[in-house]
Amino acid sequence: MTRPVIALLSDFGLRDTYVGVMKGVIKGICPDADLIDLTHEVRPQAVAEAAFLLAVSHTHFPDGTLFLCVVDPGVGSDRAAIVVETERHRFVAPDNGLLSLIWRQAEEPAAHSIVSHSHRLTEVSATFHGRDIFAPAAAHLAAGVPVGDLGPRIPEIEQLAFIQPHREGRSKMHGAILHADHFGNLVTNIRRADLPAKVNADAVQIELGEASLRGIFTTYSSVAPEAPLAHWGSGGFLEIAVRGGSAAERFGLKVGDRVSVSWAA
Amino acid sequence: MTRPVIALLSDFGLRDTYVGVMKGVIKGICPDADLIDLTHEVRPQAVAEAAFLLAVSHTHFPDGTLFLCVVDPGVGSDRAAIVVETERHRFVAPDNGLLSLIWRQAEEPAAHSIVSHSHRLTEVSATFHGRDIFAPAAAHLAAGVPVGDLGPRIPEIEQLAFIQPHREGRSKMHGAILHADHFGNLVTNIRRADLPAKVNADAVQIELGEASLRGIFTTYSSVAPEAPLAHWGSGGFLEIAVRGGSAAERFGLKVGDRVSVSWAA
Amino acid sequence: MTRPVIALLSDFGLRDTYVGVMKGVIKGICPDADLIDLTHEVRPQAVAEAAFLLAVSHTHFPDGTLFLCVVDPGVGSDRAAIVVETERHRFVAPDNGLLSLIWRQAEEPAAHSIVSHSHRLTEVSATFHGRDIFAPAAAHLAAGVPVGDLGPRIPEIEQLAFIQPHREGRSKMHGAILHADHFGNLVTNIRRADLPAKVNADAVQIELGEASLRGIFTTYSSVAPEAPLAHWGSGGFLEIAVRGGSAAERFGLKVGDRVSVSWAA
Repeated sequence: MTRPVIALLSDFGLRDTYVGVMKGVIKGICPDADLIDLTHEVRPQAVAEAAFLLAVSHTHFPDGTLFLCVVDPGVGSDRAAIVVETERHRFVAPDNGLLSLIWRQAEEPAAHSIVSHSHRLTEVSATFHGRDIFAPAAAHLAAGVPVGDLGPRIPEIEQLAFIQPHREGRSKMHGAILHADHFGNLVTNIRRADLPAKVNADAVQIELGEASLRGIFTTYSSVAPEAPLAHWGSGGFLEIAVRGGSAAERFGLKVGDRVSVSWAA
Repeated sequence: MTRPVIALLSDFGLRDTYVGVMKGVIKGICPDADLIDLTHEVRPQAVAEAAFLLAVSHTHFPDGTLFLCVVDPGVGSDRAAIVVETERHRFVAPDNGLLSLIWRQAEEPAAHSIVSHSHRLTEVSATFHGRDIFAPAAAHLAAGVPVGDLGPRIPEIEQLAFIQPHREGRSKMHGAILHADHFGNLVTNIRRADLPAKVNADAVQIELGEASLRGIFTTYSSVAPEAPLAHWGSGGFLEIAVRGGSAAERFGLKVGDRVSVSWAA
Repeated sequence: MTRPVIALLSDFGLRDTYVGVMKGVIKGICPDADLIDLTHEVRPQAVAEAAFLLAVSHTHFPDGTLFLCVVDPGVGSDRAAIVVETERHRFVAPDNGLLSLIWRQAEEPAAHSIVSHSHRLTEVSATFHGRDIFAPAAAHLAAGVPVGDLGPRIPEIEQLAFIQPHREGRSKMHGAILHADHFGNLVTNIRRADLPAKVNADAVQIELGEASLRGIFTTYSSVAPEAPLAHWGSGGFLEIAVRGGSAAERFGLKVGDRVSVSWAA
């Protein structure tokens, strides 16, 4: 029988043993779990970044994967713990907006709150629910416990107010930078479908900070080494890159900064 | 049958392939081993930090877990390699104090030295015993080799002289910072049991560097955003935190710095 | 039956979800795969560093291990994707020199190009072949697909022009720094076999930048704390270290800087 896959995402970093301890707790409840790290380097308490990374990543995991997601600035407050089920996957997380994009992308998502005291550690701390509540809930689900045993169904989950890209007239779109990756690539919130289907990619103009770029290219090698370019990134969003370099450094931009795209109407 | 869990802790970092190579060696000896990283970001050669992280983490792992711990400033010298067995777990490490706290916490710990040449790599380098001695020993144990085959029982292991918290009069306790975590939380060496059971938590006074804090709180959300607080951390030690921020940055403190706690006698 | 081991090496870092996504793709194709991280912290696009780390690491993995290696500055260009098979292992990588050293070290290596559209994701992006081409190819191989199904055999692979150490007269060797590890140890490209077998190790003189060291030692503890030393590292190359410290910081040296060794002829 295939082992149940649990993918983990958090802002715990790898310097401490928090992630290792969550895995130890899981192994005690569901020894067969096959654990995969999605990332633990979400910026501390950056719920929106976690929501974005999860949204562009989860589709590549096999059916049945359970995602354990802990970016939890409200730990110890009265924010709920939830399970969201979609057509292909399940997600365990605090109800703080982390699952907003998953919820919106799914056709018929279902949510349950996690309230069962039989499916958490005996002692629950006020500051490490990843270990005490979320990891045990994920492990019990992976081991076959029905979601209804964890708590009642709830109709809605918390939604983040993401900065949405918006149109200005017929030939301009305003957006923002959602994520700066390890290579210094700047991922914006503008999707290909936000532009007219027949737009001339070579004539598109991108404004970012003081700089501007012309054209949306297909590959890094379309431009000279060290040259900047805009392209549709592997997650489907418009990205700003520098071939063989870092766009974040080149343009001095960061998450939240504005980007606009204009084209011949 | 359940696969044997090996949890790994080291100061090797993840930039090099040292950790991956240890895992490759383990897989060659015990293909069924289920490998979990506790952390590899212990500060280089910081044996006391490793001892602390192991002590607060190991209890959450399932019975039978084997811990492979390599923070080894004396590699190539005549320090011994050891296995410690407790009621629930086994630990493979250099005999340099890394297992001090495990030894003190256990009821009837047993130690063996690792001397068998049949249970190490054929060629042993002078600088990478993690690969050549510790990983093979852990893998052989996980594969079912009796601990006595690795070497003889020894009565004692090396102990670190940890900074112990101490009382001043009836209403003050002096301690120190043991660990600064990824979020900038400062973990002290003062435990809840070090204070009188009936102390009024709201009236406790904490002195750290030039600053002082009043009260020991239950959750981060007990204070305003960006405000500092003291609380009993998830490992059972007094922690200094800043809600939504970094206490290490706010107070400019680091491992080894002094902290004192006083209360109404 | 033993689960197939796939070892992963890349420059993707752990801040993004790129590595996690590759693993999700693998699990969808080969659920039994046993995934081990070699490292994901190769310096961005540093193909030579990746080639070096792979060469000194792969020998410690069990027979049959498949290495998935993605450091790919030419992603989206016409560089090929390849599989190299040696006596003990298989390697999937871009054909950009990353497998140079593996190829030279092997007795009868065989290479295939990866061109099959049935063994990649349906949609192939221009910027993330790790996810779309390399991970699926590795997973299909691990699941038992014959290498010939991925593409035709090719006679040669791309070779990197590594800086080779060279002799000056009978008693001096010039080399360079290949890698600076997490501890600040400086690994050079000079091997033990590059020096005469009977050289007097105590009398060897090492020049690096403005500094010079005398003697090649066996262990860190051969010198005083904080003292520098040269020794044959665990990968078989001459290394410069500082006992309990960082040689990279002490000498202000980095990858590519020159080192020379001279001895009594």
